[in-house]
Amino acid sequence: MKLGARQIEEFHELGYLFLPDCFSAEEAALLRDEAERIYASSRQEVWREKTGAPRTAFAAHTYNEAFRLLGAHPRLIEPVEQILGEPVYMHQFKVNAKAAFEGDVWQWHQDYGTWARDDGMPEPRAMNIAVFMDEVMAINGPLMLVPKSHRHGTLAAAHDLATTSYPLWTLDKDTVTRLVEQGGIVAPTGKPGAVLLFHGNLVHGSAPNITPYPRRIVYLTLCAVSNYIRTPSRPDWIAHRDFTPIVPVADDALLAHARHKRVAAE
Amino acid sequence: MKLGARQIEEFHELGYLFLPDCFSAEEAALLRDEAERIYASSRQEVWREKTGAPRTAFAAHTYNEAFRLLGAHPRLIEPVEQILGEPVYMHQFKVNAKAAFEGDVWQWHQDYGTWARDDGMPEPRAMNIAVFMDEVMAINGPLMLVPKSHRHGTLAAAHDLATTSYPLWTLDKDTVTRLVEQGGIVAPTGKPGAVLLFHGNLVHGSAPNITPYPRRIVYLTLCAVSNYIRTPSRPDWIAHRDFTPIVPVADDALLAHARHKRVAAE
Repeated sequence: MKLGARQIEEFHELGYLFLPDCFSAEEAALLRDEAERIYASSRQEVWREKTGAPRTAFAAHTYNEAFRLLGAHPRLIEPVEQILGEPVYMHQFKVNAKAAFEGDVWQWHQDYGTWARDDGMPEPRAMNIAVFMDEVMAINGPLMLVPKSHRHGTLAAAHDLATTSYPLWTLDKDTVTRLVEQGGIVAPTGKPGAVLLFHGNLVHGSAPNITPYPRRIVYLTLCAVSNYIRTPSRPDWIAHRDFTPIVPVADDALLAHARHKRVAAE
Repeated sequence: MKLGARQIEEFHELGYLFLPDCFSAEEAALLRDEAERIYASSRQEVWREKTGAPRTAFAAHTYNEAFRLLGAHPRLIEPVEQILGEPVYMHQFKVNAKAAFEGDVWQWHQDYGTWARDDGMPEPRAMNIAVFMDEVMAINGPLMLVPKSHRHGTLAAAHDLATTSYPLWTLDKDTVTRLVEQGGIVAPTGKPGAVLLFHGNLVHGSAPNITPYPRRIVYLTLCAVSNYIRTPSRPDWIAHRDFTPIVPVADDALLAHARHKRVAAE
């Protein structure tokens, strides 16, 4: 899948790009089922909220076939290669739960801040891709982005080890206020299968989810191969060390897997 | 101000009624200014979040002229008298802050649950009126309502003394899920000056506000005079003991006060 010139321009202008109909309902349903199987397991890669509800599962593309196919999907890999201008590898892969009633806050942050400080990534030449597994609504803790905030480089941040179960380099109120005065806040909403690409320096966060509607999102972080991490400090299932360029699978690979699984179950 | 037959029907059907243009920008600005003065004081009526940010100020109509006028405003008193069919008195008056970055959650609850259990109010013949002082947006912790949930009577609840600084009788996840399956969730958004009336048994809550946009709302609880509280256990500045019917002020009283204050300041 290739982006048009206007889409690429929009990405550079605002720092994100929303693709509402990237994956089908059937593909999204497969991912939801597989996510639940993973959350129910007791792997070290599954992190939980303080309440015990799942918060995120790392590296699912390394131990689950559906997420392996998603992690090499041409609808995700090709647009990012186009923007970064070279092959990409998988720096991080997270299946975030934002569970019904219990999904906790993600404070305002830039992801590249963490990749630089904790992993030694030389430049912000890596991209986040959010794949919606559930409908993301205004009310169930949607991802909030500060448009244009990616143009400010890597901002000063503090290491928040207390607010949630996930350590995060977070921005202070004055910084967020200043950036929001310039760019506002958007919270793209959409159906399962929608995709949101955003720059590694784009400021984002999300409020807790107090509704009965879960808001599960897969996050791929695709990094330009030449921009591989130099001084990783986190485990290799959080910040991957396999810098091999991703070879995309066939466009229908995920769908074929969903159908195969359904036939096998019948 | 009188409601039309269709508005009254809608209220009984859904449990709430939204009036987007009830007060002017000038009237709302006065209320915001006065709210900030109150939050900056150290009165016992001002309760704070665990972070120290203001959460709510009780009984402001008893010690602040602008809120006194709001608490007797015909645009609020008359519609509620119309629905309840008799004169009303002020059971509770709260100026809720939902402060930028720090405004914490209000868990799912019915207000009448608290009025019955803590104050001995005989029947759910009291109404909440929310007056928006700031723009309420989808992103800054809007009030969320479960339409039609007021038809289920007073639901079993647990006394939550831990989650926030405010003790609250809250509903469990199964109950909320069941009601949301029937009625969905709405989160009315609107400009400063908008008003939301809702039934004392309507299930509602709000997520934390992590944005730089404060979301200040005044809540009046107007109770039918014959339904006065019988066995109050909370202080009289939380659950009032003055059951005198409210005599509405002039429709322009709040606006006149705003202009008078502005002239005096010049």
